[in-house]
Amino acid sequence: MNQVINLQEKLTKIHEHYTPKIVAQMNDYHFKLAKIKGEFVWHSHEDTDEVFMVVQGQLEIALRDKTVILHPGELYVVPKGVEHKPNAVEECHIMLVEPAGTLNTGGDVNEMTKPADDWI
Amino acid sequence: MNQVINLQEKLTKIHEHYTPKIVAQMNDYHFKLAKIKGEFVWHSHEDTDEVFMVVQGQLEIALRDKTVILHPGELYVVPKGVEHKPNAVEECHIMLVEPAGTLNTGGDVNEMTKPADDWI
Repeated sequence: MNQVINLQEKLTKIHEHYTPKIVAQMNDYHFKLAKIKGEFVWHSHEDTDEVFMVVQGQLEIALRDKTVILHPGELYVVPKGVEHKPNAVEECHIMLVEPAGTLNTGGDVNEMTKPADDWI
Repeated sequence: MNQVINLQEKLTKIHEHYTPKIVAQMNDYHFKLAKIKGEFVWHSHEDTDEVFMVVQGQLEIALRDKTVILHPGELYVVPKGVEHKPNAVEECHIMLVEPAGTLNTGGDVNEMTKPADDWI
């Protein structure tokens, strides 16, 4: 674990959309990378904030009252309990920071739910 | 707080070296930016891991048994309790992720200690 983590190098190991992979742990938090394309599902995380940071491409995060757009080098904190739906018209590479065990679909488990413990 | 945070734009507001400024909060964690140049002091954080990520330039982190070098888009987790000394030959821009209240000089308070609650 205790090595320099190159985000671009790690991203070459991701071959599925909306399938976050852990690259680092800080205390009980995970840093995850994901490639996304298209619309995700509405969900929220009742117990935690969630940080999105864009590495490449453009990320839209729909909230119930607005949509925020993130470009590379930009980050956004989705507060706990706030419903959100990520979207990317073209493939987008993102980093997520959230507590270990946080499910990508929040309080729902559905066909988009992926394991929360996959490292690359 | 709940706005898109552009790291480069925030960095234009930092005018001192080794003076971390908070740009985002996730639960009880802070995302901080800093411009650094030259050697910092040896220190450790007894209660927490600390994440360094390079935005621009080259960061060296001396550990007692090795030195790691980070480039833009790379991150490193200094485990809790591990002594480390950041260094940058040329000015380097970094993002730190750590619990709110974490002092830049760890368990020591000295002439390099800066407030841990300054937002930009």
